[in-house]
Amino acid sequence: MPKRKRVAFQGELGAFSQLAIHQLLGDQVEPVPCQWFDIVFRTLAAGEVDAAVIPIENTLHGSVHENYDHLLNFGMPIVGETQVRISHTLIACPGVPLRDVKTVYSHPVALNQCMKFFRDNPQFERATFYDTAGSVKMLMNENRRDAAAIAGAIAAETYGAKILKRNLEDDRANFTRFFLLTPPGARPEPTQAKQWKTSLAFTVRNSPGALFRALATLALRDISLAKIESRPLRGKPFEYLFYLDFLGKADDDRSQKALGHLAELADSLHVLGTYPQWEQKR
Amino acid sequence: MPKRKRVAFQGELGAFSQLAIHQLLGDQVEPVPCQWFDIVFRTLAAGEVDAAVIPIENTLHGSVHENYDHLLNFGMPIVGETQVRISHTLIACPGVPLRDVKTVYSHPVALNQCMKFFRDNPQFERATFYDTAGSVKMLMNENRRDAAAIAGAIAAETYGAKILKRNLEDDRANFTRFFLLTPPGARPEPTQAKQWKTSLAFTVRNSPGALFRALATLALRDISLAKIESRPLRGKPFEYLFYLDFLGKADDDRSQKALGHLAELADSLHVLGTYPQWEQKR
Repeated sequence: MPKRKRVAFQGELGAFSQLAIHQLLGDQVEPVPCQWFDIVFRTLAAGEVDAAVIPIENTLHGSVHENYDHLLNFGMPIVGETQVRISHTLIACPGVPLRDVKTVYSHPVALNQCMKFFRDNPQFERATFYDTAGSVKMLMNENRRDAAAIAGAIAAETYGAKILKRNLEDDRANFTRFFLLTPPGARPEPTQAKQWKTSLAFTVRNSPGALFRALATLALRDISLAKIESRPLRGKPFEYLFYLDFLGKADDDRSQKALGHLAELADSLHVLGTYPQWEQKR
Repeated sequence: MPKRKRVAFQGELGAFSQLAIHQLLGDQVEPVPCQWFDIVFRTLAAGEVDAAVIPIENTLHGSVHENYDHLLNFGMPIVGETQVRISHTLIACPGVPLRDVKTVYSHPVALNQCMKFFRDNPQFERATFYDTAGSVKMLMNENRRDAAAIAGAIAAETYGAKILKRNLEDDRANFTRFFLLTPPGARPEPTQAKQWKTSLAFTVRNSPGALFRALATLALRDISLAKIESRPLRGKPFEYLFYLDFLGKADDDRSQKALGHLAELADSLHVLGTYPQWEQKR
């Protein structure tokens, strides 16, 4: 029997990242929880896990700049992407009915994303907790009969708790994009992909038209952009770091020429990874 | 005596947004706390305040997409910007010495930004709270002698509490950029500014080179970019929304020509505001 792949992620077991792991690698893998994002990268760099999954941007909260920093510093290549809908559920210990719930625990960001639910149910007292899935774990450990937690459905499954109510979130268009990372040496598994994506980070001096010239390297070759974002470099007010995703495989002839051309114009250029584009299952 | 200006912001009194208000408008204004961002915009639109101050991006956490949505939906023009360094302090009730502190309250995001402090001081138990400044308010209301809170120094000043320790944050390069908004009809105060900035939101169809052509309208006129960010439009996978800041006043001749040209190429174009560029005091 083949050894189960170990996959690092940030958070408690039952976090949304674990859903991303299953979407990317199926159910036959072992999720390895880490307390902080830098620990995820360190664990992967030390060879203690086979892969890692990290959130990179959210439709409401923007890019996770910390993880872009780690991608640049640790040099772990991106080999996959997926998107998870952040849908909040009300979870309690088995046998606890909704009418017995007095207090609702969760991370404040999750509590804030369920405003309408709390307006419609003013009988619930809100209590902040460190982590969404962690609040379900706490209820189960303490066998709380007077409280519930807000977390993803996967947290109920993970801890054997019960879902009392689904879709508590105010905004259904709350999605997080995740990256799958492997160690630099790992041989990629052969993939059948209709479309590939490549993620870059590059710096250019902030002269008028600098980004325009950089984008010419792609536009003149009819390569489509999928993302672009500027980030001012602190302490270097006239230099900008750009994150850019384009459609194409990094070792295609056309991509190779564009990357060579971009390297001529940019002060620095890092290919963060090339991977099959995520496609929504229908 | 002139009436004091009332300025809406999200959070409790003593929040970092209040520091942004003082940087933008001085100390002779009345900060009006609101529980949610949409309430800030509604309060301004209803004429209940003279201005509003909102966070728009953070060097670690990226853009606050929710506020970009409100800027587009409410049409309140940006008339100023500033940047606040997010520096965390340990705050307790007057007379409480550091050795009596057992529990430290704060918002989990703030607690997570002070990892080194908690590693160096393992005697403190961390407790999550809804709001950084709100945790200082709670300590003072309950006259807690066994606890402290992590918040900005302005929260200690606001509630008459005492700072026990400064600069708890792991990363000194933690800055938040804020926008000052006024009602659409308000006459701007005459401003002496060396440099102006203009913020736009526009959509283009996601064809290869679409953004390249849009940026040509600025680059061909030697106009510098200060920010660019793409945001996929949910439900419209082939259309992108871009946020763009350029250096220049919107009603300059050169800016007017660039904006006219961009309007030809974009499917939609909104000028979110034109305002003096923020400059760090030395």
